[in-house]
Amino acid sequence: MTMTISMIAQLLEEKKYNSLYEQLNTMNAVDIAEIMDELQSEQAVRVFRLLSKDLAAEVFANLPSDKQEFLIGCLTDAELERVTSDMFIDDTVDLMHEMPATIVKRILRVANPADREVINELLNYPENSAGSIMTPEFMDLRENMTVGEAIEKIRREGIDKETIYNCYILDNSRILKGVITVKDLLIAPLDTVVGDIMETNIISVHTLSDRESAVMAMKKYGLMTLPVVDSENRLVGIITIDDAVDVIVDESSEDIALISAVNPSDDPYLKTSVVRHAFNRIPWLLLLMVTSIITGLIISRYEEAFTAVPLLVTFLPMLMDTGGNSGSQASALIISSLATGELSPKDYFKVLWKEFRISIICSIALAVANGIRIFVQYGNWQIAMVVSLTLAGTVVCAKIIGCTLPMLAKRLGLDPALISSPFITTIVDAFSVFLYFNIAIAILGKL
Amino acid sequence: MTMTISMIAQLLEEKKYNSLYEQLNTMNAVDIAEIMDELQSEQAVRVFRLLSKDLAAEVFANLPSDKQEFLIGCLTDAELERVTSDMFIDDTVDLMHEMPATIVKRILRVANPADREVINELLNYPENSAGSIMTPEFMDLRENMTVGEAIEKIRREGIDKETIYNCYILDNSRILKGVITVKDLLIAPLDTVVGDIMETNIISVHTLSDRESAVMAMKKYGLMTLPVVDSENRLVGIITIDDAVDVIVDESSEDIALISAVNPSDDPYLKTSVVRHAFNRIPWLLLLMVTSIITGLIISRYEEAFTAVPLLVTFLPMLMDTGGNSGSQASALIISSLATGELSPKDYFKVLWKEFRISIICSIALAVANGIRIFVQYGNWQIAMVVSLTLAGTVVCAKIIGCTLPMLAKRLGLDPALISSPFITTIVDAFSVFLYFNIAIAILGKL
Repeated sequence: MTMTISMIAQLLEEKKYNSLYEQLNTMNAVDIAEIMDELQSEQAVRVFRLLSKDLAAEVFANLPSDKQEFLIGCLTDAELERVTSDMFIDDTVDLMHEMPATIVKRILRVANPADREVINELLNYPENSAGSIMTPEFMDLRENMTVGEAIEKIRREGIDKETIYNCYILDNSRILKGVITVKDLLIAPLDTVVGDIMETNIISVHTLSDRESAVMAMKKYGLMTLPVVDSENRLVGIITIDDAVDVIVDESSEDIALISAVNPSDDPYLKTSVVRHAFNRIPWLLLLMVTSIITGLIISRYEEAFTAVPLLVTFLPMLMDTGGNSGSQASALIISSLATGELSPKDYFKVLWKEFRISIICSIALAVANGIRIFVQYGNWQIAMVVSLTLAGTVVCAKIIGCTLPMLAKRLGLDPALISSPFITTIVDAFSVFLYFNIAIAILGKL
Repeated sequence: MTMTISMIAQLLEEKKYNSLYEQLNTMNAVDIAEIMDELQSEQAVRVFRLLSKDLAAEVFANLPSDKQEFLIGCLTDAELERVTSDMFIDDTVDLMHEMPATIVKRILRVANPADREVINELLNYPENSAGSIMTPEFMDLRENMTVGEAIEKIRREGIDKETIYNCYILDNSRILKGVITVKDLLIAPLDTVVGDIMETNIISVHTLSDRESAVMAMKKYGLMTLPVVDSENRLVGIITIDDAVDVIVDESSEDIALISAVNPSDDPYLKTSVVRHAFNRIPWLLLLMVTSIITGLIISRYEEAFTAVPLLVTFLPMLMDTGGNSGSQASALIISSLATGELSPKDYFKVLWKEFRISIICSIALAVANGIRIFVQYGNWQIAMVVSLTLAGTVVCAKIIGCTLPMLAKRLGLDPALISSPFITTIVDAFSVFLYFNIAIAILGKL
């Protein structure tokens, strides 16, 4: 970052606009947006007005939505038109998803009619669909063009396209026939016909496909852009890799939140209000509280057992924690392998058999370690036996539940990450407590 | 996928090699690699020998390492040279990281001397460094070239470069002076001087920078390639976005594994052996078992309390689970925000204040719900009071520990995901049990 926030605030204070203008226009748009976010709103507006037209649009697209909203409120219609007409259409659509209705209307009003129509179409794709993250600004060529003509077309129209890395070859009905990289165009002789060198084996997705599966296809095939087609195989847009990266990072944060029993939030941590944070968490805590009450009720049925042998209570936390941890280990690995597409529900029996064998090894290691510890500490081999047997049974059960539930969720079309670790923990807890007291009664005799 | 595994196996069986050759050479390399992975090893080798030279290298780069190793064992030196010379150098280096020493030596022996030198250099960058994921095959230009000359150079040399999307302008000492996209070159007049239109405000990383921070810079600035420079600012390689995407997905799987107390594995779930899986989990389970024993010991100090009022034991699972869950919620959000760079340790006090207020709201909601439930169910307002107060105290403590530990880990240069949910759970458990019995003794009188 070439300038710090305090330097910019000072130049503003001293009204050294010329010097500030020069400094700002050598900086990266992302850095300027970051600084504007930390400045007071009124200072940010003044900085924004000093930016050149191109830079202004890019900076604007990188601002957080609260600042965008404030800024739009300060801009005249002419200024707003200047900014939005220079933004890529997919960025404008992202913006409109975040803005209140009055601002959406204002942006549509200032947009030119052609853009307005495209924006309206894009706004209609369902959230999380491939259509919602695509851009309609791609480079299209015709099969019968020569490479020289294709390059000429790119030279003429390329400036308005988000990327020219992959160019798509369409027929007269806009049906997708092929794809060619700009690199292949550049290294081919100028009189080659595009149709002869284009790649015809094309990976594409439908507008209504899930955005996560679209970006996972991009990762799998190493694509820079992914064509999005309608039901007649007409090309309507492309997903660019920078948007795909954002989706991957979002989905992963979402998975981590869900695994830990928090409703994911679209906003960054510090931009989310305390009340919103609390409301993302309380329903899960209440739900899990109810399930752990069941474990409590099971315990209360064995009151006689633990008043007769109070030592039994001492081992409860260890049994419950270990069960929960064993289950979470399995579920976390399965959830992240399902997310990357490495596993699918059809692998269930392979996974089950693998987890079963893993759980046997883990059980033996933990049961032995624990049995020895208890025997040495308390000199009571019966208690050691009860705890170790329970531990072994709990670990096996936990791994099986831990791998089964996320795969079942996926099979049912739900997000596997909904099967959070806490959820598995509470189920395993109930099982382990039940097993514990029954083994205790069997080994220690009628208590 | 144009062909299924069974179709290919059948064509092999019937020795219809011509037909198989034609089919295979229209398919995507990633799909062929996937099919080869599922075929028997000997069949896979026969399929591989049917691929055209270019396709063979691409298919090979996409195979899992166990198949690569088997295949290399079947290839003659001449065949191996043909495959590796057509691979991008960064893929060759990835391959060598996975292979046993004998194969590494064989690959180096068949490589041409220039490649061998570059490979040896790349092999020396530490794991997880920017240098370890970069490719030295980038397009370089000179400041005083015209756009026409630059395009001519790309036309001549582009075929050997991994990407020409961004071209880098170097001086005679290979010091990085600027960057220009191929799009900007194509739309500029042919006689423009490259130095006049190149971008000089360049985001770059050092070869020894952490690979995660390098890819997060690519995400932040929306870059397709990131230049990697040495300590004298000489350009030594670039990180391409496809490799960055792989790193992002790997790091996120790694975080999910660590959060759930599993040592992350480099191999896919099904390719990892049962014993390896067990050994990735047992140390954590043992460690956490030891910490939960401490909670057990705290409980045993209050034996008199729960034998006098056995109902107290009933609420232990609920208190422990809720505490653990509250802490994991906070830690998971902090860990994923730290990973995306949205939060940094300097935000600690903002985060602490936020979590404190969130915990107050969560506490009140849970304590009230729980107090009413216990009073209605057992008609004992003293017990209701004891449990609700403990619950409130536990939630506040859990959120504070949950946000503090990951930030502390980051501050100390450790991976915040090491502060797994189970780890926080066991700490919070001990606190909550201690609080519980002390509040019980205070409210219910000397038991």
